[in-house]
Amino acid sequence: MSDWLKSLKTETPQEGFELAITLARKGVGYTQPDAEVREKLRPEYAESPDSLTFASQVIAIHYQTVAAANNYWK
Amino acid sequence: MSDWLKSLKTETPQEGFELAITLARKGVGYTQPDAEVREKLRPEYAESPDSLTFASQVIAIHYQTVAAANNYWK
Amino acid sequence: MSDWLKSLKTETPQEGFELAITLARKGVGYTQPDAEVREKLRPEYAESPDSLTFASQVIAIHYQTVAAANNYWK
Amino acid sequence: MSDWLKSLKTETPQEGFELAITLARKGVGYTQPDAEVREKLRPEYAESPDSLTFASQVIAIHYQTVAAANNYWK
Amino acid sequence: MSDWLKSLKTETPQEGFELAITLARKGVGYTQPDAEVREKLRPEYAESPDSLTFASQVIAIHYQTVAAANNYWK
Amino acid sequence: MSDWLKSLKTETPQEGFELAITLARKGVGYTQPDAEVREKLRPEYAESPDSLTFASQVIAIHYQTVAAANNYWK
Repeated sequence: MSDWLKSLKTETPQEGFELAITLARKGVGYTQPDAEVREKLRPEYAESPDSLTFASQVIAIHYQTVAAANNYWK
Repeated sequence: MSDWLKSLKTETPQEGFELAITLARKGVGYTQPDAEVREKLRPEYAESPDSLTFASQVIAIHYQTVAAANNYWK
Repeated sequence: MSDWLKSLKTETPQEGFELAITLARKGVGYTQPDAEVREKLRPEYAESPDSLTFASQVIAIHYQTVAAANNYWK
Repeated sequence: MSDWLKSLKTETPQEGFELAITLARKGVGYTQPDAEVREKLRPEYAESPDSLTFASQVIAIHYQTVAAANNYWK
Repeated sequence: MSDWLKSLKTETPQEGFELAITLARKGVGYTQPDAEVREKLRPEYAESPDSLTFASQVIAIHYQTVAAANNYWK
Repeated sequence: MSDWLKSLKTETPQEGFELAITLARKGVGYTQPDAEVREKLRPEYAESPDSLTFASQVIAIHYQTVAAANNYWK
């Protein structure tokens, strides 16, 4: 893969949250590199409550990292 | 999405908890942006014990972040 | 909801554990605010080993937060 | 419940691990206080690989807390 | 059980990873002390992708503890 | 196994992410050492949304460790 992550620093807590989403998606992308397959799977999890909660959980874990990296934007 | 997260700082531990809930929901919202679909899924998880525990877990993870950002409201 | 969380400080590690339980339950309560529904679901998870472990896991995550907030009662 | 947790301090990393096991079990015990029911459920999870891994996971989360409380027994 | 954990210190990050594996297995061992039963369960999880990911997750949680205990081998 | 992990230090946050992927895979590899079996299981999880999220979650946990080890590449 090309360069996609240069820094964990973000301007705001919200941009940090969006970076956490990127990190969660990249974790999927490295495991299933075929974008077409990933796209095909989308309806399956996007309408399953537990799958959505699961996606939200991975974002939460990454957000801990990003928030710490930004000293919680204090 | 518009601005929804300006700071991780809250006045009290309880407001921090409520911010953690917001963060958990936003994680779902970014993954399934269609509010109507999310609303349709609500009965499915709101009456499933494990889905509720799962929701509570994601809140718990975010609460770690929010609590650290507020130095545990010491 | 009314005020239910004034501080993460507790006198003892055991009270901290009990606060972690409260936090885990509140995470469920905010997601499913109907106490009657929650009560109805109780038998379903209270006799399922994995559901009980799951409940214990959320308590464990909150206990990390509470313990850190109390500097581990050192 | 009576007093069961006076301190997170232990003499050795192994005793800390055993305390983490106690904490994981107490999380279950508070949720399902009936010891007879818990005993009845034991065969169900004690022979399920995923249930055992799940139990091990909760221990791992508590062990993070106990280890930090003991400054990693350095 | 006899003494099996004297210290969280390891010489290298890789030995630390192997200690994390030991910790994850011990969590299972304390919950299901019968080695014969555990052996019987092995094929069931060793060929299930999610069970393997789950095992890897518990290792990851313990590795956080071991790495912190070793100051990340800096 | 031979030496595969000499340090948690990486040059960039992205290399750190790739190290987290390696750690997640090694956790699987130690549990199921037969590479042929692992290869056979790949299609099963690579097309399951929840399995992919699960893989991403383990990466997220390891990334917390790697990021801390690198002082968040500050």
